[in-house]
Amino acid sequence: MAYETSAPNLPAPSAETLARFTRIVGDKYAISDPDIQEPYLIEWRRLYHGKTPLILRPGSTEEVSRILALAHETGTAIVPQGGNTGLTGAQIPFEHEVVVSLERMNRIRSRDPRGNSMVVEAGATLAAAQKAAEEIDRLFPLSIGSEGSCQIGGNLATNAGGLQVLAYGNARAQVLGLEVVLADGRVWNGLRALRKDNTGYDLRDLFIGSEGTLGIITAAVLRVLPRPKSRATAFVGFNAVEDAGRFFDLAMEMSAGELTAFELMPRIGLEFVLRHADGTRDPLQSPYPWYALIEIASQREDGAAPVIEALLTRAVEAELIADAAIAASLGQAKAFWHIREMMSEVQLHEGGSIKSDVSVPVAHLPEFLRRATDAVLAILPGSRPLPFGHYGDGNIHFNVSQPVGMDKTEFLSHWDSVTEAVNAIVLEFGGSISAEHGIGRMKRALLPRVKSPVEMDMMRTIKQALDPKGILNPGKLL
Amino acid sequence: MAYETSAPNLPAPSAETLARFTRIVGDKYAISDPDIQEPYLIEWRRLYHGKTPLILRPGSTEEVSRILALAHETGTAIVPQGGNTGLTGAQIPFEHEVVVSLERMNRIRSRDPRGNSMVVEAGATLAAAQKAAEEIDRLFPLSIGSEGSCQIGGNLATNAGGLQVLAYGNARAQVLGLEVVLADGRVWNGLRALRKDNTGYDLRDLFIGSEGTLGIITAAVLRVLPRPKSRATAFVGFNAVEDAGRFFDLAMEMSAGELTAFELMPRIGLEFVLRHADGTRDPLQSPYPWYALIEIASQREDGAAPVIEALLTRAVEAELIADAAIAASLGQAKAFWHIREMMSEVQLHEGGSIKSDVSVPVAHLPEFLRRATDAVLAILPGSRPLPFGHYGDGNIHFNVSQPVGMDKTEFLSHWDSVTEAVNAIVLEFGGSISAEHGIGRMKRALLPRVKSPVEMDMMRTIKQALDPKGILNPGKLL
Repeated sequence: MAYETSAPNLPAPSAETLARFTRIVGDKYAISDPDIQEPYLIEWRRLYHGKTPLILRPGSTEEVSRILALAHETGTAIVPQGGNTGLTGAQIPFEHEVVVSLERMNRIRSRDPRGNSMVVEAGATLAAAQKAAEEIDRLFPLSIGSEGSCQIGGNLATNAGGLQVLAYGNARAQVLGLEVVLADGRVWNGLRALRKDNTGYDLRDLFIGSEGTLGIITAAVLRVLPRPKSRATAFVGFNAVEDAGRFFDLAMEMSAGELTAFELMPRIGLEFVLRHADGTRDPLQSPYPWYALIEIASQREDGAAPVIEALLTRAVEAELIADAAIAASLGQAKAFWHIREMMSEVQLHEGGSIKSDVSVPVAHLPEFLRRATDAVLAILPGSRPLPFGHYGDGNIHFNVSQPVGMDKTEFLSHWDSVTEAVNAIVLEFGGSISAEHGIGRMKRALLPRVKSPVEMDMMRTIKQALDPKGILNPGKLL
Repeated sequence: MAYETSAPNLPAPSAETLARFTRIVGDKYAISDPDIQEPYLIEWRRLYHGKTPLILRPGSTEEVSRILALAHETGTAIVPQGGNTGLTGAQIPFEHEVVVSLERMNRIRSRDPRGNSMVVEAGATLAAAQKAAEEIDRLFPLSIGSEGSCQIGGNLATNAGGLQVLAYGNARAQVLGLEVVLADGRVWNGLRALRKDNTGYDLRDLFIGSEGTLGIITAAVLRVLPRPKSRATAFVGFNAVEDAGRFFDLAMEMSAGELTAFELMPRIGLEFVLRHADGTRDPLQSPYPWYALIEIASQREDGAAPVIEALLTRAVEAELIADAAIAASLGQAKAFWHIREMMSEVQLHEGGSIKSDVSVPVAHLPEFLRRATDAVLAILPGSRPLPFGHYGDGNIHFNVSQPVGMDKTEFLSHWDSVTEAVNAIVLEFGGSISAEHGIGRMKRALLPRVKSPVEMDMMRTIKQALDPKGILNPGKLL
């Protein structure tokens, strides 16, 4: 794997220290058996395999507080972990760190439908948070592929993005308040449910996206919204990616605020899905080089359908789209979404895949896609670029499947040169080398190459100020 | 005035240091004449009157950088200033500080209609930023009473709120990237135009709302939106404030995302306006104890009117509203808004006014309003509470006009006891003592009383880390 870094400098904790950690949560919730530890130490893509003397599963904020106080006292490195679905290795220990899994802290502490908020503990899965909102007739709009297993704490620590950022913003935008255990064990109760509060520095947003390096998020006040009353979904084919761009502009013009998804897919992605995902079919009669899955959600019972129809009519007149299918039923909408959701998994069946998660200003996406594709093919002729994702956010998962017949290990040895070529073009457009997955271990060495020394220095200064002993997730992000 | 604090500890700059500062911007843009300084040193409510040896008006980021490098070298305190419209004295020097006015840095550096963003310098007025967006057929949704004179840098430094937060969020939500000069003169170029970027700590949101105590914002990438195609405005009367609350819930249910304003006003506020603002008339036939000005904006040409009609029909059926007038023309909508916009100014004609800017979770607003009113009347029988403002954000300007015939100075001597009574109830509801105006000088002494020691300590730690010599706006906020 690319850009791996070495283990942190902190020493391994002594047996006595480990015993003290264990006493905080009790034997039942401290895991030192390597077999039982295993699911916490690998992740589904198998890019990282960690090692730890101890996994702690605290059941309360107070236990997390005592764990960090002890870690601070003894200089023990800590790795906070949620659902272990992260894609950059931020949640995997190197070797000596004690892992703190938040999974037992999974309560919905309270729900306030009139105030449009709920208080959720870090270990609740995203799906559980969505369900808790549904039960009070509200929408919690964060939605990502791993929502059945990823946890709210991890979602906030990585500022997760996903499928509905276009209309509702990323994880950061869903948070009104936080409860955080600081590096020395003190608890910050910032569980405020206010829409407006200008009393001092925005500490909340500093913890969100800090990947467990500044504190451990134990609970959050999340905003919820009235549920849309109607929804319309369409699968659209384009003859050129520039047409997709102009169609996106038109969709924004005609439905800004109600356009909840604009997901781009290339033909090869659809082909992989049709080949490897059971029961899928091409929504359109003929093949097109590019597709978009779009969705409109409205607060009016009869709001969404007329808008999507008017939009597609106007787009046909302007010759922006080649063909389109509007979902005629919830089942058909699900089938469209299934194609999009399988886009990652099906790549496993086509050999090695080199992955990037990048963003550029949305108006530059078509040009970026052409240039990045050309650059990749120049390095690896015959490789199969499969750029897809959240077009409306300017965020593309620029994946590349190996050439047919090539040795997988040989292909993956080109990881650095391929991602560097893509990243170089991203930077030319003022883009980001990690739009939604974060930095973690994977991109840590890259960070000083894409950030100015001033920015790196500010981040290190803040890290030093809030975690002077450097015990929180060392070797990640910074 | 309440909660005044003493001047900062930093010494007055020497004549030589002042001469060096002057050389950076040139004599033409350095003001030492007290008469010419005057407009920079008082504000419109005349609560603060500052003193300074020197006002600098830099014309570029590079000049701001050189000013702060020199301030850092010489230990000179600096007060950044925008349009001087702040309501807590954050922009007014105590005595020795050098004032840095950003007013000359007022360019719109670039605009990108397809990317829905623009780069604006700190000294551009909010109105100029709105106009720049309009010229490319876009909406810059921040809107506040002082928009003709307040400046973008000040809006961001204070995380300004205003009239459309309900649909579009406060100043923070409008910012994609920032350019900031740090305390030691280094320039952070964070002018990114990305919707998603998870590469490290959220430094942007740390500077936003920090009231010039962590750095000087010199430019920002602001997001803009497609302009609404239709707008509908109504003036609604209620028999009880609880009805306004239930009507707000219904409005959210029927038009979330398109409900751009829900502004509450009490009868006495309307009476003051009718009495003191020329050409105003009561939009409704009979008087009611409470009113709301509501507005719906839609991306559809025929979108707004049917929604507001359906909403009012449903509200009449449910007996939530006593009466309502829908604006039949743009002129009538302006007349409704004029009533709301005059609500602050007309209080000047009714003697002294004690002011609070508070928020509570929106579902608790009716109960808060009743209790706070009772508490104020218990302290000052005959006083005239005039709570009004951004109901939809849970944000009320809890103003209190003096009893008729009372001596103004005598009335204002109750400032602390009145605001403390209001604040105590705010805190019971988990609210904020400064929803949108910030802390500045006015509420600085209050801050440690409403924040936990942990939170105060984190803020001080961050201040120390980013401004180790304490030269940026000392004596404000922290």
